[in-house]
Amino acid sequence: MTTTQQPSSAAPVWNRRRQSKSERVEAGRRFTDGRVVPTDAVEDLLHAVLRPGDRVALEGDNQKQADFLARALTRLDPGRVNELHLVIPSISLPEHLDLFEQGIATRADFAFAGAQSGRIPGLIADKTLTVGAIHTYLELYARMFVDLIPDVALIAAEAADSAGNLYTGPNTEDTPAIVEATAFRDGIVIAQVNEIVDHEDLPRTDIPGDCVDFVIRADRPFHIEPLFTRDPRQITDLHVLLGMLAIRGVYERHEVTSVNHGIGFDTAAIELLLPTYGGDLGLKGRIARHFALNPHPTLIPAIESGWVETITSFGGELGMERYVAARPDIFATGRDGSLRSNRMVAQTAGLYATDMFIGSTLQIDADANSSTVTAGRLSGFGGAPNLGSDPRGRRHSTPTWLGMAEELGRTEATGTLGPLRGRKLVVQIAESFGTGGVPKYVDRLDAWSVGEQAGMPVAPVMIYGDDVTHLISEEGVAYLYRAHSADERRAAVAALAGAGPLGQTSTADERAQLRRDGLLATPEDLGVRRSDANRTQLAARSIGDLVTWSGGLYDPPAKFRSW
Amino acid sequence: MTTTQQPSSAAPVWNRRRQSKSERVEAGRRFTDGRVVPTDAVEDLLHAVLRPGDRVALEGDNQKQADFLARALTRLDPGRVNELHLVIPSISLPEHLDLFEQGIATRADFAFAGAQSGRIPGLIADKTLTVGAIHTYLELYARMFVDLIPDVALIAAEAADSAGNLYTGPNTEDTPAIVEATAFRDGIVIAQVNEIVDHEDLPRTDIPGDCVDFVIRADRPFHIEPLFTRDPRQITDLHVLLGMLAIRGVYERHEVTSVNHGIGFDTAAIELLLPTYGGDLGLKGRIARHFALNPHPTLIPAIESGWVETITSFGGELGMERYVAARPDIFATGRDGSLRSNRMVAQTAGLYATDMFIGSTLQIDADANSSTVTAGRLSGFGGAPNLGSDPRGRRHSTPTWLGMAEELGRTEATGTLGPLRGRKLVVQIAESFGTGGVPKYVDRLDAWSVGEQAGMPVAPVMIYGDDVTHLISEEGVAYLYRAHSADERRAAVAALAGAGPLGQTSTADERAQLRRDGLLATPEDLGVRRSDANRTQLAARSIGDLVTWSGGLYDPPAKFRSW
Repeated sequence: MTTTQQPSSAAPVWNRRRQSKSERVEAGRRFTDGRVVPTDAVEDLLHAVLRPGDRVALEGDNQKQADFLARALTRLDPGRVNELHLVIPSISLPEHLDLFEQGIATRADFAFAGAQSGRIPGLIADKTLTVGAIHTYLELYARMFVDLIPDVALIAAEAADSAGNLYTGPNTEDTPAIVEATAFRDGIVIAQVNEIVDHEDLPRTDIPGDCVDFVIRADRPFHIEPLFTRDPRQITDLHVLLGMLAIRGVYERHEVTSVNHGIGFDTAAIELLLPTYGGDLGLKGRIARHFALNPHPTLIPAIESGWVETITSFGGELGMERYVAARPDIFATGRDGSLRSNRMVAQTAGLYATDMFIGSTLQIDADANSSTVTAGRLSGFGGAPNLGSDPRGRRHSTPTWLGMAEELGRTEATGTLGPLRGRKLVVQIAESFGTGGVPKYVDRLDAWSVGEQAGMPVAPVMIYGDDVTHLISEEGVAYLYRAHSADERRAAVAALAGAGPLGQTSTADERAQLRRDGLLATPEDLGVRRSDANRTQLAARSIGDLVTWSGGLYDPPAKFRSW
Repeated sequence: MTTTQQPSSAAPVWNRRRQSKSERVEAGRRFTDGRVVPTDAVEDLLHAVLRPGDRVALEGDNQKQADFLARALTRLDPGRVNELHLVIPSISLPEHLDLFEQGIATRADFAFAGAQSGRIPGLIADKTLTVGAIHTYLELYARMFVDLIPDVALIAAEAADSAGNLYTGPNTEDTPAIVEATAFRDGIVIAQVNEIVDHEDLPRTDIPGDCVDFVIRADRPFHIEPLFTRDPRQITDLHVLLGMLAIRGVYERHEVTSVNHGIGFDTAAIELLLPTYGGDLGLKGRIARHFALNPHPTLIPAIESGWVETITSFGGELGMERYVAARPDIFATGRDGSLRSNRMVAQTAGLYATDMFIGSTLQIDADANSSTVTAGRLSGFGGAPNLGSDPRGRRHSTPTWLGMAEELGRTEATGTLGPLRGRKLVVQIAESFGTGGVPKYVDRLDAWSVGEQAGMPVAPVMIYGDDVTHLISEEGVAYLYRAHSADERRAAVAALAGAGPLGQTSTADERAQLRRDGLLATPEDLGVRRSDANRTQLAARSIGDLVTWSGGLYDPPAKFRSW
């Protein structure tokens, strides 16, 4: 041992978090019988447990909401509980932002903001809310184990027993990740549950009671959003055309067997075209066998037609409970028979075990950078940056992945040094004009201005242009990964932009050259007749059709029951 | 609904896996009392449960081994149990390969092979073993949820109760990932345990009994390898020099606060230089605060000196149990006070929540491709490809990450289109000559020949050259990410190669130019005097010193007790 660096003789403290937890749990126990807190003591409990400046993980998931606890937080005394740092996957409820207006919370790290995204820029501007960063889900979980370790987690489950064992039901979602990050760092875990039952009546144990400090029956069942239900009635002939182009120009060409779909109508159209158009092409069993996605109702016809081998789900989907439970060879289910979802697992599966991400975007620029952040709405990223990125650590081969290596080996623009290396397909679908005739292809993403106004160090681009391998519009499919230069890449993007300003920069000569070089395939090149692209191609054209396909197992939420 | 695609009137079967599990569990129950199987019935149980062609997930982790179950597998009748497909994170025990020689298993997907790596090429050559792919750990787990779903999982834990609840102890490692992939897909989970105890005596529940079908007390405690213990006696003055260069040229320059370290003596030297050399430079609190790594004994002095805020562990380390339990503010620990490790979590943390990977390599080529696969040894990748890659989905900023964006923005070789984007640091340490005077810098990696002989579609490169941002040898630090061309990059690599063949291609003029362009920093440039680089700089120079630093809490394994 060096003489200059002896261990200090003063005894440092190595268990501050454990001591703090012990004090807080003791304070909270005044309101409980064991781990169970009476519903009307929720504010007392939170006042006893929370400390100013705490880092609080709140669910806040994509679908499932610990809404009872969120509402209770807004009723706390800001003189006692303030400057909370929210670590929240999804800012979904008005209460999540009310906390900032009331001075209870001041800082947030998050991944997604849906309906609340419009309020966020104003809160940032007046310094009511400081955003640490906007993440992709898997990145946020990762930081919860390293530099965003929660002091307190506020979570939601279907049921608990008196020992704190939790049954999360089909929407397990983010709960295991949040609990592991908190419980094993001497943080405090508080679960709202819909019911408290005897241990024998708990359908399964998703979270061991060892990891849970307090359970409290909510005043009403937790809120959950049917985010992944797309009514086939709203799928247009244009969506059908885009779907047909995707199937021929990407799935068939690259033999894509494992895929993550976004939640847009374009990918819903693909799902509904598999058993019809895909079947006619003889593609059953050759493409689209493994999916990382929520239980999309629009996948029912493909499942029933025998296309799908496995689905790995991020969360559940309202109304799909009985259907999923009746298809355990396809979906992950627990011993009780109901769906097991897990967003951390499914994001990992989508990153490393699927060959393609395909999704829609709201805006795309000349370099193929895209974002769903549009003027005035800081909507976050969700899973797209992770799912829509090439995992550089991947080392296993599939025909799809290796085929990209072989094609890339023939271009000069790969930047690859040395050995052959495959690539994940990252496909963006963007027709030339969106709702209301607004061009989707723009000179400059709104994300740039939104990022500047919010003082973000890097613009909130959802998928970076150099991560995109394919782009699809009604003009055809652009094979961007085949470009030899940035200029050629831009020409291929412009060729898809239709009659908008960016599209007008594309000439017929350029497009002919792009087709010869294999960077552009028009519908004609792909054997897709525009006249065939209509809704009659869809395996289901209404929610009612989906219910029929499911043999009555799908129970659509009330707002979709208008077929 | 379309008229062409009605749901089939024949009733397909959707629960084949559940039916199969039910039959197998029933067959296995003949040998049990509830879930508990007598030790001497292990072969009967496995014969009853396994079917030819099963996909079997076997632990086979980096450290923890379900060795009792592996030995039992080798005693099965190959006429009854054969053609097993092993999904195994680490091929660690002779029995793992004996299974192939005996015809019980025929196919393997894995991530790492240590001591057994020399046997693998021969088994492949005579078609006794077919390798699906070699993965990085996180990639293998991901596939276990998608296209490598296990039929049976054979796992190891410290203790179980009669309901199958498991306590994994400090080496939780891969168990939660394997169990989740198996149990929620109607696979069968069999756990060997060191002891079966009453529920009240289970220190904590790491795996709920709901997920476990059979538990069986092993004939002796599971085997575990102290893979991460580096004896400071073996750290040379050269390692010290490399460590000083890393601290000044990388940690200090880039303000690296979060990091994953490999297991070499170079990074052990860095750990032991932090409290001494790093302290003298005033870097405490400015660098190296968050770590994703196992409980390295060589980190004890830095922890005791107050450098380390958090450590997120992939697994445990033999002898570190009491020390870790006494430092819960630093390590993740359970309610029982002992370490919580989780390789899936830590690999995710290392991917998305750390700014740097730094590790040693055995061979590196002119393009900076590197591999630990050397002639005749197919050793696999472990965590390095994942940890040593830039996560393209990352969206949060740190000074380290953003600083790379700013530097990259000033070069032409980034391939980045449009917006500023940071980058993870991927640092490889390779002195010019390894053990026995063999050059580490080579024209062609052995990995190429090994891959060809094994019929692999892509050579088993561990870290690709274009993922490496920095290279360190005794000649200095190469800032490869600043290269404007592949030629300039190669010149920077050659400048570090010393007196070997590759180094002789580097001229003094080239090196001077590289220094002017900021691609090369020599020890002198970094203010590192070679004469200062000696073992007296190390905070501990023996295992005994580490024990002293730990206040007697560290209990080194017997083979390290020679200080």
